[in-house]
Amino acid sequence: MKLATVRTATGTAAVRIDDDGADRGAVELGAVDLGEFLAGPDWKAAAAVADGPRHDLAGLDYAPPVPRPEKVFCVGLNYRTHILEMGRDLPEYPALFAKFARALVGAHDPVEMPAGSEQVDWEAELGVVIGAEIRHATPEQAAAAIAGYTVVNDVTARDFQYRSVEWLQGKTFERSTPVGPWLVVDEGTPGEISCAVDGDVVQQADTSDLVFPPADLVAYISQIITLVPGDLIATGTPGGVGHARTPPRYLAEGSELVTRVEGVGELRNTLVTGS
Amino acid sequence: MKLATVRTATGTAAVRIDDDGADRGAVELGAVDLGEFLAGPDWKAAAAVADGPRHDLAGLDYAPPVPRPEKVFCVGLNYRTHILEMGRDLPEYPALFAKFARALVGAHDPVEMPAGSEQVDWEAELGVVIGAEIRHATPEQAAAAIAGYTVVNDVTARDFQYRSVEWLQGKTFERSTPVGPWLVVDEGTPGEISCAVDGDVVQQADTSDLVFPPADLVAYISQIITLVPGDLIATGTPGGVGHARTPPRYLAEGSELVTRVEGVGELRNTLVTGS
Repeated sequence: MKLATVRTATGTAAVRIDDDGADRGAVELGAVDLGEFLAGPDWKAAAAVADGPRHDLAGLDYAPPVPRPEKVFCVGLNYRTHILEMGRDLPEYPALFAKFARALVGAHDPVEMPAGSEQVDWEAELGVVIGAEIRHATPEQAAAAIAGYTVVNDVTARDFQYRSVEWLQGKTFERSTPVGPWLVVDEGTPGEISCAVDGDVVQQADTSDLVFPPADLVAYISQIITLVPGDLIATGTPGGVGHARTPPRYLAEGSELVTRVEGVGELRNTLVTGS
Repeated sequence: MKLATVRTATGTAAVRIDDDGADRGAVELGAVDLGEFLAGPDWKAAAAVADGPRHDLAGLDYAPPVPRPEKVFCVGLNYRTHILEMGRDLPEYPALFAKFARALVGAHDPVEMPAGSEQVDWEAELGVVIGAEIRHATPEQAAAAIAGYTVVNDVTARDFQYRSVEWLQGKTFERSTPVGPWLVVDEGTPGEISCAVDGDVVQQADTSDLVFPPADLVAYISQIITLVPGDLIATGTPGGVGHARTPPRYLAEGSELVTRVEGVGELRNTLVTGS
């Protein structure tokens, strides 16, 4: 099952995306967005039987699946192969940092280049969205509290990221982080993750290579703070970012950024000059 | 003028604290909290003339002034004297990190010791609350967008803070950060900042010693993301934290934490075992 938030003529709407079989379309779920929908009781059963107004799949305008999550957690180095190839030890704990909701844009929205940055870089990531309130969860409880998966590109202003020891200022620029297009619920395991810039594949890895897989991250974070429906966790990016290349490669105005996670979905974004 | 959010028998209420003259009391402003109130038009004029239901000052139960700010920014090393005495250069840019709203508690609430941490430390800070939406502000515009000042103790689990290069996980434990008791609006300049633990003064400095003073921080952050009414900026702590002492000193269950900023207010919190 795929759930999304789309922009309609009258505002946003949470929808179920039926993209299989004869009766294709986006079916409204009766909530203004997935943030509101996931906070409701028995949302999974309600989504499965929803039969609200329908929209054509062609031309859907995707908002971020949860447009204003209470919390966005991001994870630093988390791909085993990439950590080992850089000669580092595997970390004992995840490196967690934050992003604010205003940084998020939809799956096909323009991504704004942070004004003042000359080192805008890509970071394809598997996103995890929370579907139940949890605190001090076991990995099993954490797995059950995951609503589903989405795709994130944690677009980063490297120059701002490294202005201090804390990365936040390079990570939370307004309208810089595409997320979506939807939330994939109970449809198997995410597969290959990749990022392409202007048609060149620049990142390619397998999401099974995560040092801290989704349920472990959710369980860990829930020791610190209560996770609530709609919270987003960006699980970290594999090797291949532009800043680590020789010479470095960065995004520019007009760059076409395609971010894919097999079994989840694809983001297609164009870089524009930000405010 | 002092504005606060207090807990009443029927929920929270934004109030003006009249603690001077004959007619002392907390006057309701007609909003559920200062977050809602500061988002309204002409809030300063409305606060000055408000004449709603009154509460006795004695026994007021203070919530955080803005209980659920959209964003909480914190600043790392920001006291000039402390940076220089450690032999470091003054930073060119502020070190910014985040905290989520669930970490906040009121001025006299219990502060929860993060479960699993054995190094819970104090960080007295001057807090700045935003009163207008701004983006790409000049320092003058930034100064005008500051609603007022409050007191923060950025209580930190040092062991969690240093588990990775990013500090977030030591900084955003649930119900660990006291803020308040009120927001001081247009009442001069904050003065001495201090922190006392069980009666011992452990931090004492002057808020005029900030490398990046409030308006500069607001202007800087507004280059990155839109600041909105209710957003909180914790401006950094001076020297004297427990982790840097020989031997180190940490907070324990029952510790009495008093955090003061002259001209702003005082927090009085007892440490309790957290969940």
